Amino acid sequence: MGIACVFTGKGKGKTSAAFGMAVRFLGYGKSVVIVQFLKGRKTGELLLKKNLPGFEIVQFGSEDFVDLKNPSKEDIEQAKEALFYAKRLLTRSYRPDLLILDEVNVALSAGMIEEREVLELLNKLPDKTNLVLTGRGATKKLMEKADLVTEMRDVKHPFKKGKKAEKGLEY
Amino acid sequence: MGIACVFTGKGKGKTSAAFGMAVRFLGYGKSVVIVQFLKGRKTGELLLKKNLPGFEIVQFGSEDFVDLKNPSKEDIEQAKEALFYAKRLLTRSYRPDLLILDEVNVALSAGMIEEREVLELLNKLPDKTNLVLTGRGATKKLMEKADLVTEMRDVKHPFKKGKKAEKGLEY
Repeated sequence: MGIACVFTGKGKGKTSAAFGMAVRFLGYGKSVVIVQFLKGRKTGELLLKKNLPGFEIVQFGSEDFVDLKNPSKEDIEQAKEALFYAKRLLTRSYRPDLLILDEVNVALSAGMIEEREVLELLNKLPDKTNLVLTGRGATKKLMEKADLVTEMRDVKHPFKKGKKAEKGLEY
Repeated sequence: MGIACVFTGKGKGKTSAAFGMAVRFLGYGKSVVIVQFLKGRKTGELLLKKNLPGFEIVQFGSEDFVDLKNPSKEDIEQAKEALFYAKRLLTRSYRPDLLILDEVNVALSAGMIEEREVLELLNKLPDKTNLVLTGRGATKKLMEKADLVTEMRDVKHPFKKGKKAEKGLEY
């Protein structure tokens, strides 16, 4: 069974760490699929796709930020679709070596998808596929089930000091 | 002045987060140089270099792991050279948009390089260059000086449970 990793916490670096792992896998000629929850925006990573064979990145979400306290019906549908897509991927004969569910923890803690379904994904993880789940607010059960959990702790953040978010650094 | 980020702590994801940021910068057509301290081994990231224009990765270290309690004279020289190289980079007219000093915190806490010199690098950080310092054991002064600090907290690690390190996941 593949290894399931969780990157959670309020600090910067969760999605970045997942993308860093993706780069490493791709470097070894392995295949990577990134499923992005709650994201439909052009990001730096997306622009690189054409340079990296074996790399697939699929976004489920609108261009706007999701109101997590009151997600729209469309946002919820997109999140459910993302999870469905991920599940289907794992049943294919040509499965990725690394599957990243970016921001899935956020969708889960906002009640947009079912914890039971995410846990099922971990329980049925095929041999050669490793799974990474990112986003703040990972649930206790998810962390219990995962093999590796890192909490990114926000010790200091420049945007608290009034610095502006910058292309590349933040998105 | 660029932004200085520190990824420290015992958890997994420090180097990965730095590489993820690199990918994002490259996606926006920006330039990235990664200077690796204490590393002379082929890693997944290294193998990708040819696919990514604007990306430079330079290793200073031997193929063997460094004995941090008793680093060899050669190891110390290599670490000093890495820092010297980084400093030189920042004085060039063609400076990278992102400079990553991978594992510099480890070299520093092992006494292989001078804290004063690393702090000087932060103090003299040019406008358009952002800096990322990775590795466990970041010093207090470094964290005070940096704009962004994330501590990767090791909540759960599979290799404690006896699972083997795997290509792509760990190196």
